[in-house]
Amino acid sequence: LSRKAVSRYNIFMTNAFKIGIAGLGTVGCGVVEMIQLQKSALLAKTGASIEITAVNARDPHKPRPVDLTEYEWMDDPLKLVQNKDIDCVVELIGGEEGPARDLIEAALDAGKHVITANKALLAHHGYDLGKLAEARNVCLYYEAAVAGGIPVIKALREGFAGNDIQGVYGILNGTCNYILSVMKDTGRDFEDVLQEAQAKGYAETPPDLDVDGYDAAHKLCLLSALAFGVRPDYKNMAISGIRDVSATDITFATELGYRIKLLSIARKSEQGLLQSVEACMVPETRPIARINDVFNAVEIIGDFVGESMLSGRGAGAGPTASAVLSDIIDLATGQRRPVFNAPMSELKEAEWLDPDEQISRFYVRLSVLDRPGVLADISAILRDHDISIESLLQRGRNPGASVPLVLITHEVQQRRIKEASHEIAALKATSDGPHILRIED
Amino acid sequence: LSRKAVSRYNIFMTNAFKIGIAGLGTVGCGVVEMIQLQKSALLAKTGASIEITAVNARDPHKPRPVDLTEYEWMDDPLKLVQNKDIDCVVELIGGEEGPARDLIEAALDAGKHVITANKALLAHHGYDLGKLAEARNVCLYYEAAVAGGIPVIKALREGFAGNDIQGVYGILNGTCNYILSVMKDTGRDFEDVLQEAQAKGYAETPPDLDVDGYDAAHKLCLLSALAFGVRPDYKNMAISGIRDVSATDITFATELGYRIKLLSIARKSEQGLLQSVEACMVPETRPIARINDVFNAVEIIGDFVGESMLSGRGAGAGPTASAVLSDIIDLATGQRRPVFNAPMSELKEAEWLDPDEQISRFYVRLSVLDRPGVLADISAILRDHDISIESLLQRGRNPGASVPLVLITHEVQQRRIKEASHEIAALKATSDGPHILRIED
Repeated sequence: LSRKAVSRYNIFMTNAFKIGIAGLGTVGCGVVEMIQLQKSALLAKTGASIEITAVNARDPHKPRPVDLTEYEWMDDPLKLVQNKDIDCVVELIGGEEGPARDLIEAALDAGKHVITANKALLAHHGYDLGKLAEARNVCLYYEAAVAGGIPVIKALREGFAGNDIQGVYGILNGTCNYILSVMKDTGRDFEDVLQEAQAKGYAETPPDLDVDGYDAAHKLCLLSALAFGVRPDYKNMAISGIRDVSATDITFATELGYRIKLLSIARKSEQGLLQSVEACMVPETRPIARINDVFNAVEIIGDFVGESMLSGRGAGAGPTASAVLSDIIDLATGQRRPVFNAPMSELKEAEWLDPDEQISRFYVRLSVLDRPGVLADISAILRDHDISIESLLQRGRNPGASVPLVLITHEVQQRRIKEASHEIAALKATSDGPHILRIED
Repeated sequence: LSRKAVSRYNIFMTNAFKIGIAGLGTVGCGVVEMIQLQKSALLAKTGASIEITAVNARDPHKPRPVDLTEYEWMDDPLKLVQNKDIDCVVELIGGEEGPARDLIEAALDAGKHVITANKALLAHHGYDLGKLAEARNVCLYYEAAVAGGIPVIKALREGFAGNDIQGVYGILNGTCNYILSVMKDTGRDFEDVLQEAQAKGYAETPPDLDVDGYDAAHKLCLLSALAFGVRPDYKNMAISGIRDVSATDITFATELGYRIKLLSIARKSEQGLLQSVEACMVPETRPIARINDVFNAVEIIGDFVGESMLSGRGAGAGPTASAVLSDIIDLATGQRRPVFNAPMSELKEAEWLDPDEQISRFYVRLSVLDRPGVLADISAILRDHDISIESLLQRGRNPGASVPLVLITHEVQQRRIKEASHEIAALKATSDGPHILRIED
């Protein structure tokens, strides 16, 4: 190992960077393994000597795939904070409250840098933790919190730093994307695919955090803050999931040239800033529509850079550990960037646009009695709400019984679609629906 | 503008970062425009005050889309080096020798950081310039040199820094990708599409630098160095372009479920490190096969992160200026990383694998006389070179005249394919070909 080479290049020289790791699940052990494998190479390449000083987990006796004997074992995570030798605490405990929050607060308060993969905690407490980090002049880094295998925090914070960001469109939840991909490939229904995913360990039980959009929303509010220079604001976000997406909708979407994706959207429009998580129809020609299975992707649109997309594995020990190590290396080589890419006082409190105000095309599917006059009734309701129809699809004839009817609207305010939808649902001839999906062109 | 906020957060404080820009074409003017637009926001966000001190171009009277009156004008780029106020020279003159090289050498030698978009120069002189930068303790940054709208240098250097990189697969030349995309969509031939691209200004005249693979190769040798910790080595690279790709090959590729792409490949295998630029067949299910038109993409495979792909616009004023500004902001906020991500003495001299040694499947297309015994002759040659056939496609019958024949081989060493190909070409019954494309599975 050529220490000489490193010391010649003295602007890159740094001292040993000592870390304490709390949480030794698959990600924590992955970080330990990566550091053990790459320590010498990283020292040679960057001059940064990354040293694990101490580790913490609930159960010291649990068998783990890495050798931890060289590190001090601490039964209490807060002991990591008291250790004067530790420069940086890596929090991989998880949970938006409790030990994780206590540890991060104590570490920042003690003037230690913090690295975390904890999106839920940052979504809820990121603003307060950011203020604490700033007051103590330390960094709070979280590349692993959003789409582990994709360096999206770095891209927004540094790669596209000079751009005025127009929009961020993400597939941020691998479980949902997997379920939607299987539904499309097999024609099976949501509940059926979910149960299989749970059996295989791809989805949690209960699955709410993933399939109802909350996990994606936690991540999106961090991306919003970085993209637009606003406070992370989890409370002001329209969140919906994929429970209402049916096999029928997926079949129609495919036939019409679309894919149904759970998109996390942060967008700047003439009407204002918007953040929302929703299942919507994306033209199959758009690259993000082609991201399948457990893969994540983020499309970023900047005024100078144009469209750029990053994709990769969003979860799992390897990708997440890789993101944690990227943060460790940045700090070890002396990088210091504000928590949300600006001093906290510069972060504006956004006035988010009500998603019902947004103008878009919509897919509307319903089942109606196959009898004369029904279409005239529906058309009249749409006309009264100033909604015009781009195309209409009616499959099969079944006089006197129900048949599916699909409408694609021209651009219209979401509020009007909802109002019209209530009225259409109340028609006697309507036996199911309308089911609405926004079209994200 | 809240200077107060910035100064409170004192670890992020930096002094003014003063730059001189040489070259005021569309990219140079784009950089000036971005800085003018974003200067206040960047100061507020990062604490870095980016100031343009002086500019240089050949013609001071040429109309330009930005106001340059506030900056000192220098007729000689070397004057930028003599100006003690300038921290960093941004070289956007272009050309692998001449004024660009003189400027970069002089600037580094004078202890100034250098930012450049000049891939040809770095491919040829990167190693020597890296040593000079190291000796003078300054940085030489070049995010804009490879796929402007894609932060790929940053991804390799920082985002995936803790990974052992297994491979980098790039679509790095927008002109070639555009031509191949149009050929596929329209069925037209290379020469025809090239002429149209030249008329539209999408391709240069002469087009050699792009269509013969040299531009992609310049970029690839920088990515190889960053990925594998080796010296940039433009001389040891197999380079071929897209001139020999015919409309017929594209039709067959599509039918067989592939896309033909000019791939820039840097890969680690059991046999050794390999770098090559070549048109090859990529399964249409692989995400990089779906990157069309002028878009660029880079797929990076790391041991922990798995597969990650970044895509976006590779060229043009906006994306390139965005990448230059990203480098400026990194330096202005105090980041200092080695030129090729390691001290120069740590960079190994790679022993590159001869591409003929690599093992792969191959597509082989030829025209042969439609008469008994021809296939037996070809099969015998293949058998003699130990090449086995996975599938065979013969289209149409035309007794006594030529018909197209397409073979897909099982995995075999490239050398054997070449040897067999010579013998098959020499058969009397062979009227055209064989045309060979490697299959990049």
